[in-house]
Amino acid sequence: MSMEATETTQSTGRGRRGGRRRSAAAKGAEIEQMPWHQPRVPFPPLKLLSDDELEAIHEASLTVLEEYGIEFLLPEARDMLKKAGATVDPNSDLVKIDRGLVEQAIASSPSEFTLHARNPDRNLIMGGNHLAFGCVSSPPNASDLDTGRRPGNTEDFQNLLRLSQYFNIIHVIGGYPVEPIDRHASTRHLDCLSDMVRLTDKAIHAYSLGYERITDGIEIARIARGVSHEQLEREPSLISIINTNSPRKIDGPMLRGIIEMSSRNQAICITPFTLSGAMAPVTLAGALVQQNAEALAGLVMTQVVRPGAPMIYGGFTSNVDMKSGAPAFGTPEYMKTVIAGGQLARRYGLPYRTSNVNAANTVDAQSAYESVFSIWALVMGHGNLIKHAAGWLEGGLCASFEKLVLDVDLLQMAAKFLQPMETDPAALALDAIRDVAPGGHFFGTEHTQERYRDAFYSPIISDWRNYETWEEAGSPHAWQKANTTFKQALSDYEAPHLDPAISDELAAFVEKRREEGGAPTDF
Amino acid sequence: MSMEATETTQSTGRGRRGGRRRSAAAKGAEIEQMPWHQPRVPFPPLKLLSDDELEAIHEASLTVLEEYGIEFLLPEARDMLKKAGATVDPNSDLVKIDRGLVEQAIASSPSEFTLHARNPDRNLIMGGNHLAFGCVSSPPNASDLDTGRRPGNTEDFQNLLRLSQYFNIIHVIGGYPVEPIDRHASTRHLDCLSDMVRLTDKAIHAYSLGYERITDGIEIARIARGVSHEQLEREPSLISIINTNSPRKIDGPMLRGIIEMSSRNQAICITPFTLSGAMAPVTLAGALVQQNAEALAGLVMTQVVRPGAPMIYGGFTSNVDMKSGAPAFGTPEYMKTVIAGGQLARRYGLPYRTSNVNAANTVDAQSAYESVFSIWALVMGHGNLIKHAAGWLEGGLCASFEKLVLDVDLLQMAAKFLQPMETDPAALALDAIRDVAPGGHFFGTEHTQERYRDAFYSPIISDWRNYETWEEAGSPHAWQKANTTFKQALSDYEAPHLDPAISDELAAFVEKRREEGGAPTDF
Repeated sequence: MSMEATETTQSTGRGRRGGRRRSAAAKGAEIEQMPWHQPRVPFPPLKLLSDDELEAIHEASLTVLEEYGIEFLLPEARDMLKKAGATVDPNSDLVKIDRGLVEQAIASSPSEFTLHARNPDRNLIMGGNHLAFGCVSSPPNASDLDTGRRPGNTEDFQNLLRLSQYFNIIHVIGGYPVEPIDRHASTRHLDCLSDMVRLTDKAIHAYSLGYERITDGIEIARIARGVSHEQLEREPSLISIINTNSPRKIDGPMLRGIIEMSSRNQAICITPFTLSGAMAPVTLAGALVQQNAEALAGLVMTQVVRPGAPMIYGGFTSNVDMKSGAPAFGTPEYMKTVIAGGQLARRYGLPYRTSNVNAANTVDAQSAYESVFSIWALVMGHGNLIKHAAGWLEGGLCASFEKLVLDVDLLQMAAKFLQPMETDPAALALDAIRDVAPGGHFFGTEHTQERYRDAFYSPIISDWRNYETWEEAGSPHAWQKANTTFKQALSDYEAPHLDPAISDELAAFVEKRREEGGAPTDF
Repeated sequence: MSMEATETTQSTGRGRRGGRRRSAAAKGAEIEQMPWHQPRVPFPPLKLLSDDELEAIHEASLTVLEEYGIEFLLPEARDMLKKAGATVDPNSDLVKIDRGLVEQAIASSPSEFTLHARNPDRNLIMGGNHLAFGCVSSPPNASDLDTGRRPGNTEDFQNLLRLSQYFNIIHVIGGYPVEPIDRHASTRHLDCLSDMVRLTDKAIHAYSLGYERITDGIEIARIARGVSHEQLEREPSLISIINTNSPRKIDGPMLRGIIEMSSRNQAICITPFTLSGAMAPVTLAGALVQQNAEALAGLVMTQVVRPGAPMIYGGFTSNVDMKSGAPAFGTPEYMKTVIAGGQLARRYGLPYRTSNVNAANTVDAQSAYESVFSIWALVMGHGNLIKHAAGWLEGGLCASFEKLVLDVDLLQMAAKFLQPMETDPAALALDAIRDVAPGGHFFGTEHTQERYRDAFYSPIISDWRNYETWEEAGSPHAWQKANTTFKQALSDYEAPHLDPAISDELAAFVEKRREEGGAPTDF
């Protein structure tokens, strides 16, 4: 082994794939990217609603909870709520929750918590002014420029996980980056969760689709971290998104998810899917009232299960195209509800989940502007957990390999924007200004030479060549640059270290559960 | 003439092209767009720099002005500055300006003024939280999807003016939307300014390229408005952008522009072109120090010419790609300087000019995300006059017909985002929420039916069809939708009314000046 090879292996530390890395390095420069870090928003959160307006929405949601009620489709959940003081209709699934119970839940839920990853360097703070970006999750389709759109499969699933691991700006695996429908539904969760903790070392999510799937998810999170059940209960290490069936309904599998997760102190994110004009009122304030009522109902459920269990307030209110009924994303209306949703989450002292969304069918200008409008709103409105931050297309129906890379660039630009501007005397550059004659230039000055390498963000996608050079290169579009980049990233990807004992324990657990038949598929 | 035709003519008021409008209406629906209005930013301006940091930049700029000096390349300007108290080096063009003179200029310049258009409905407030979007200006090339990129010509120039008139969200003609190089340089300004006030009725700009061009511009603005010289002096009706030759230099034609414009109380916008790493220090704070020193030097010049003359603080600090030296736009660095520039302008109580920029070579994702990042910054940083708001491509080297339409959509989305969310009891929609059963939908409710038409922004470009329908339609990209839209807009365009007497006076002035030879071309 040559000296160079030895150094490479050493520098990757516990990497198992030093050989692969060397061949990638031999091919050409690696993709320049920001180091792993959780960006923080240095600005106060934007206020779109006045305090009075915020209270009006809060009060209206309490009216929904106290007078109209929410359907809880799981008898066990209704029993728990009844015992806690809610009014449960004996002849239906309807539960009415009074403001006292809501206030109690607000008081007991934490405003910030650490979400643990199997690699402790990847632990995330959920709350405050911290951002955590998640990869796209749950689309039924995947696409790339080479082969177009296809139903999700295992190869795409694994490759999207590799990209989510590779790019430092993706902090959390927010769900299946695509649904691999070639895996049998009864054991898909075992294969997928196993892939998640083998191909990545970041914090993970499991779906609340019945008892088996969510408890298997909790166990896999525990095994991957190599911790005891007690330590897992002290340290939230898994997240599960609970979507209400808007309007005013939470189904059985979701409630089962809350019960199993919250009772073990794992992180629940309640996200009502309140499309204004469809499953929610056509007025944004009305849609927010409904979103808020449903989110508070979920909050109460988590705190009834276990006071102090971590809960993230999720907002997903967008609008529909009133001509066609099609959902719209990254719209001015979406921006407003994202920001107002943040105000509501903060009113309750809860971490806030929102999303980077668009409704484009391809990686064109629309996919970019709807995304940046989303990012604008979620940054200024202080989102904490940002779902679908990289790779979402078609309003969530497709995971795009190129959109993932494009989003990585957009997220990195936002993160760079959030870093403070240096204003110390050297940064004010008075000597450099004095020394460059009027009409001169700063290229060759010592001040520039000392700083130029790291002075500015170096983009992945943006093509800044002049028109002639760009035309000679074949007039490439951003989409094409993203295509070559995702392939390079896959080639450069290295699997993170996993302790062999943990790997074995994981394999044994998955095998045992597979033999038991996995999970029922009649949901 | 049929009843319908009569009504159409009446409804267009003073339109001369009722017949054309009818035929457009017969062809199909007109483009849906927002009514003419000047958007206002309801949020307080974003603070990127602390008060101390802002003062550090201010103080450093005063050091540049007091100790290093700025070159003023016009003897008349140096004489005026000397008389006002500046220190003028007898052996060079260098002028040093002390803080007293700067403070005096800050005190005398207005923080807000009205920019008058020939149609008083198009008057614009410059300052406060008002936005005014200008069309692209000054590129040497134009392009569209059909025929590609070509040097600017009269037809493109006129068509870009028609589009700038057609779209309500474009408030001001910020310069030539493309340079029509088929017009002779000595009389180009006469033809172009004449086109501007005939094809549009919005506020206009004239270039400061020597005495003749700027004074002809002032006279054409006066004639077009049909006002006396005295009224013109009371009512700023023309704007001229002064770019410094960074670093630390203002050339003769620009200074001539300030003298002629400010002495007649017309609006001057001083915009240093301070690319960080090239014509300005590689640190953003250093580039801002230099931008600020140059802008203040220009401010002093305007106020020495005429205390109280309207002056707009221009910021255009971006970065270069340090690998190639190519200018970069819409970057995280650009966002920071746009916001910090707004803080500087407000420190001096001056209206603030900034821009919607990108460095893409084509109307792809890059062109969109760099633009939305720019718009994010200029909205949150309270830009007032937004140059190049619609149509800029290639870092300003090309006016794109499709990018203009795309930008119109982006600007309208930003404007819609800035409109307040209604939170009155009807908007909170409690009755609608009560009346829709859990799991139901709101499509058919009275609450929705009463509001759905105007509930949400209706985009020009965004394609929200589902994938299958979109694919059947030929998988169109945003660029293609923008292409068909600009052609429809040109077909639907109507020239604004111009009083025949004014039209004659304008023609006579242009003819006289043409016979006199126009302007010298040896600049």
